[in-house]
Amino acid sequence: MWFSSDNAAPAAPAVLEALARANEGPAGSYGADPWTARATALVREIFEAPEAVVLPVVTGTAANSLALATLCPPWAAICCHEHAHVQEDECGAPIFYTGGATLWLIPGAHARIDPEALERRLAQACHAGVHNVQRGAVTVTQATELGTLYRPADLRRIADIAGAWDLPLHMDGARFANAAARLGVSPAELTWKAGVQALSLGATKNGALGVEAVVFFGEEAERRGWEFELRRKRGGHLLSKMRYASAQLAAWLEDGLWLELAARANAAADRLAEGLRASGLAQIPHPVEANMVFPTLPRAVHARLQAAGARYYPWPHEPAPDGPDDEPIGCRLVCAWNTADEDIDAFLAALRG
Amino acid sequence: MWFSSDNAAPAAPAVLEALARANEGPAGSYGADPWTARATALVREIFEAPEAVVLPVVTGTAANSLALATLCPPWAAICCHEHAHVQEDECGAPIFYTGGATLWLIPGAHARIDPEALERRLAQACHAGVHNVQRGAVTVTQATELGTLYRPADLRRIADIAGAWDLPLHMDGARFANAAARLGVSPAELTWKAGVQALSLGATKNGALGVEAVVFFGEEAERRGWEFELRRKRGGHLLSKMRYASAQLAAWLEDGLWLELAARANAAADRLAEGLRASGLAQIPHPVEANMVFPTLPRAVHARLQAAGARYYPWPHEPAPDGPDDEPIGCRLVCAWNTADEDIDAFLAALRG
Amino acid sequence: MWFSSDNAAPAAPAVLEALARANEGPAGSYGADPWTARATALVREIFEAPEAVVLPVVTGTAANSLALATLCPPWAAICCHEHAHVQEDECGAPIFYTGGATLWLIPGAHARIDPEALERRLAQACHAGVHNVQRGAVTVTQATELGTLYRPADLRRIADIAGAWDLPLHMDGARFANAAARLGVSPAELTWKAGVQALSLGATKNGALGVEAVVFFGEEAERRGWEFELRRKRGGHLLSKMRYASAQLAAWLEDGLWLELAARANAAADRLAEGLRASGLAQIPHPVEANMVFPTLPRAVHARLQAAGARYYPWPHEPAPDGPDDEPIGCRLVCAWNTADEDIDAFLAALRG
Amino acid sequence: MWFSSDNAAPAAPAVLEALARANEGPAGSYGADPWTARATALVREIFEAPEAVVLPVVTGTAANSLALATLCPPWAAICCHEHAHVQEDECGAPIFYTGGATLWLIPGAHARIDPEALERRLAQACHAGVHNVQRGAVTVTQATELGTLYRPADLRRIADIAGAWDLPLHMDGARFANAAARLGVSPAELTWKAGVQALSLGATKNGALGVEAVVFFGEEAERRGWEFELRRKRGGHLLSKMRYASAQLAAWLEDGLWLELAARANAAADRLAEGLRASGLAQIPHPVEANMVFPTLPRAVHARLQAAGARYYPWPHEPAPDGPDDEPIGCRLVCAWNTADEDIDAFLAALRG
Repeated sequence: MWFSSDNAAPAAPAVLEALARANEGPAGSYGADPWTARATALVREIFEAPEAVVLPVVTGTAANSLALATLCPPWAAICCHEHAHVQEDECGAPIFYTGGATLWLIPGAHARIDPEALERRLAQACHAGVHNVQRGAVTVTQATELGTLYRPADLRRIADIAGAWDLPLHMDGARFANAAARLGVSPAELTWKAGVQALSLGATKNGALGVEAVVFFGEEAERRGWEFELRRKRGGHLLSKMRYASAQLAAWLEDGLWLELAARANAAADRLAEGLRASGLAQIPHPVEANMVFPTLPRAVHARLQAAGARYYPWPHEPAPDGPDDEPIGCRLVCAWNTADEDIDAFLAALRG
Repeated sequence: MWFSSDNAAPAAPAVLEALARANEGPAGSYGADPWTARATALVREIFEAPEAVVLPVVTGTAANSLALATLCPPWAAICCHEHAHVQEDECGAPIFYTGGATLWLIPGAHARIDPEALERRLAQACHAGVHNVQRGAVTVTQATELGTLYRPADLRRIADIAGAWDLPLHMDGARFANAAARLGVSPAELTWKAGVQALSLGATKNGALGVEAVVFFGEEAERRGWEFELRRKRGGHLLSKMRYASAQLAAWLEDGLWLELAARANAAADRLAEGLRASGLAQIPHPVEANMVFPTLPRAVHARLQAAGARYYPWPHEPAPDGPDDEPIGCRLVCAWNTADEDIDAFLAALRG
Repeated sequence: MWFSSDNAAPAAPAVLEALARANEGPAGSYGADPWTARATALVREIFEAPEAVVLPVVTGTAANSLALATLCPPWAAICCHEHAHVQEDECGAPIFYTGGATLWLIPGAHARIDPEALERRLAQACHAGVHNVQRGAVTVTQATELGTLYRPADLRRIADIAGAWDLPLHMDGARFANAAARLGVSPAELTWKAGVQALSLGATKNGALGVEAVVFFGEEAERRGWEFELRRKRGGHLLSKMRYASAQLAAWLEDGLWLELAARANAAADRLAEGLRASGLAQIPHPVEANMVFPTLPRAVHARLQAAGARYYPWPHEPAPDGPDDEPIGCRLVCAWNTADEDIDAFLAALRG
Repeated sequence: MWFSSDNAAPAAPAVLEALARANEGPAGSYGADPWTARATALVREIFEAPEAVVLPVVTGTAANSLALATLCPPWAAICCHEHAHVQEDECGAPIFYTGGATLWLIPGAHARIDPEALERRLAQACHAGVHNVQRGAVTVTQATELGTLYRPADLRRIADIAGAWDLPLHMDGARFANAAARLGVSPAELTWKAGVQALSLGATKNGALGVEAVVFFGEEAERRGWEFELRRKRGGHLLSKMRYASAQLAAWLEDGLWLELAARANAAADRLAEGLRASGLAQIPHPVEANMVFPTLPRAVHARLQAAGARYYPWPHEPAPDGPDDEPIGCRLVCAWNTADEDIDAFLAALRG
């Protein structure tokens, strides 16, 4: 009963097998190998973007930070949701990689940036000219940190607001697959067609051992790609045996596996949410649109779950150690590509007591 | 006939198999898993250093840069050999991670730092006080970039010079295994017993898919380890599914595999060097002490080798496109854990024409 | 009728004359001169801090940023008021100088940090360990950006909260003189006796041409002072002809001139505030405790003032270009050491129409 | 008998008087004042460059570092002479401001970059693509750190070499006035007409209290100027009471004062060099072309000079404390705008014993 994170899950068998296949004989290093070429070709095809530049790294933090550093100068600000991963969980990596950019925290329900709040923030900025941090870039997380989604029109709205100030739009797609699988919309429509210029496409949480691809779209893709390559090397993120990262990526994208794995994780979250609702014990304050559920449960129920061996994190904060049995306490439950119905059902059984 | 780099080689079967074994069920993320604990225990045991802090990352550039950032403040200098990897092949990564430290380039035959030159450089430094970059740290590469070795007494001499200025000694051990296998000296004697306080222990070039461990020794290990952890996270180098890096590392260290693989690569280099010498066509200006040979060959011989499909790099520079047949041109030949005798013999046959 | 800023005012005659006196003959550079020694001695005497290290720079931004960089590592956060100068008006300089620290914005009425909000922020921080930006330092502005003051007990409260997490307390004292003059409390009681470990002591706004001194107090003063010296040099803030900065500083501190000048600016603000209140046209939402008044006035009154040639900034934002005559619009009026009663009276006359 | 540095000299009377005149009444801050406008106009006129952007700061280190940061990205290298001030005396400031650029040290006699060595260095660079620090910019010092000069043709040669790789050329003109006064060549011919795109124009060493202007020439001046403004603010180098820096600069440039002061310093160096040569006691290994002489004198002569109260630095290094009387020891003698003939003659008399 592990619902702590999708990164607690193992890799999908097809991804692991690809590693074994890639382990034959010598190969060019630093990306000069057929697996890297194949991964690039797959991303271009799937995103209908023949000009896209595709650059693998091993963590989402690296993908986001390096991409944002390519988009935003040191003296400017990146607008992100106030609970975005780049703000809350990367120990300042985007600040480090940009050379000192600022994060402007934009509110918004369900971890989605409120377009009006973004518009206001950008309009109010820089009233003192050179004395102020300048406008730099906008980043959204898809699926969001609360397991909700932006529709193409939502993204377009944000891209237009950014574009009015000539700012690029980046997407932290650590769970992009979950979004794409759920919405049934083409990857192109969820990215460059909606104004996204750079995507961190995450495979790690969804069946890989550890690989994310930064994808640059559009006219500036080549220029940004080269700058990214220099920053990636300089950040120690250029893998000598790149084939092993690329082979994962290629296997994950091949034949729609990435969407299939994501759909399984999403379905698991649906089953879990349904069970929680049916139990009459849970409040679920956010729409369940990806592979995560954030129920509020009475303290006593948490105690039962933990006693039964369920693993998950309280959310958004660790609760006080003591309190009344009926005190509502939030938590985060994350399903993965391999979350078994049995585990969900065991969790729900433990929940009901 | 691939002699271009040891990172063109695949992973050793035992390492790959360990990945498959690590792929069972859920595991704690970010290092809270049994494989990471096992890798740490193995390093501590092998290096006879129960206090050592062991921190895996995926590239040597990351290992070196993050370690050096922990040892050297932004306003100071890292003394390295003038042809060190940190200087020549990391696109300034140590400068980036330290926040702007300088590299002081120390000469020395066969890519080994000349202790007297180091001593002089440190003594002359900082004569203008606050106006000068300060003394910061010393780093050596073992085996060196020219495939030569430091003996324990060589290291102790350098550590003492560094210590006289209160500077820590770091070792870039991308090919530490090759050194340890060749010298038949204990890992402890090659590191902390000789004054090394931080080691980048490389597995990637020697049979892993991609993992290096930074090891801090001694009294400051814990403090430095925690600072390293923050820098690693901030650099995007903390893996969520750490188990896959650690499983590689553990399998590589288990039962002396790392030394066995390195010994094979070293023996291949010996066979190659012997054949080169026997051919009467090659000059070999540097001792062959690890898994690399740097012969100088006539231009016509290079043409023959390339026609036969041999892959390797000219060294230290790309030669002019044209020249006389007997023009001596240097090159680098790197053997790996899996370099086959057949490949060496085919190379030598092509060489002889 | 200039009320735009205290930095629009000229230098006090005694400060300018000191420059002329310092212009005799040769002098040691980079601070090895008698004026720098004198300035240090005066600060130590006035602050009753014989161990204090005193380091002049030419701007408040440099003073704050360099001091904070000495107190807070790159991976940590500086707690400041959400409208602090370091956050709003320094284009990210503290982020640049710290190498990427974050600013945590703490609310609080009248631009004073609310101690409970600070306590909560610090307690909630770092719940995800290495994934989070760490706690780093706390900074307060005295007088605040809204012209209000912290009493010694307010400072002690904040220092204790910081101290509970082992965080140093910095004070941006761009208008420290105004605070000290108003409160009639000793400089020691307003700084180190209340827990302040580093002070940016500003003279520029209060009668100098351009000089601020960073003062480190306490046991760590010497160590921090040397690190600051290296950072100052590296930031291009070590003046070769330091005598001219130090001579300003010494003249400003000599015989209580600094407090006298500040008292004049404070009195001017009092006179202005009184006139504003008496006019019946102004709301003054913040206590007038230093040399600034932030009245809200009807749009039509602003028009009258501007027509009469009064210079000042709307506050906190530029108003819309059009609106009803009675629309309340805020502004900032800053008095300087040389603000003339005639100017205040002329302003008030124009205000009344 | 102060020959330690031109920054040990006081300010010229006309510059000091300009400060007094600038001290009348209120003025716009941060450069929105008539003195800044006047300084800009003067630079544009004197350099025949109506498009030039002129940005004052208070130190040469700031001028150089901020200018170079605008010209060179973090992952690239700045080619400078191996004994350039940016390399030897700025504690790594250019590295700090660029965000981690490298300095490539080019040899050359008399502290002038050897064009062929520069050409070779640039040609050899980047043979390993993304693994290498990239080519970034070139900087020359005029007059050099050894008091020698580049003629326009020398500069053009270097600019052409830089231009072949699309690199901008910066000039550290801490003693540009000395060069211009000596060569009798127009400022334009010594800068933009010879290919210089950015100049650090130093006034501090030549009669100011403390001001240097960064001047950007050519088509990119405006874009670079704005980036510089952001970097300057962020570096804490934007002065609130800018009028005092600009008034110095304007007074120094007005009516050719800057050239007159420099000519005086140059003439003093000539007189000193002549006396040294006539004494038969000195070797002078470098041409005396600006305001500095670097004689080699017997140890016993140094002892006499020091006993007589002469102040200067040994060069390039502190000698051993003891040695034979006739041991030749180098030193640096710097003349300033106010170096008196009497002082030179007294120095020479002491020298002769």
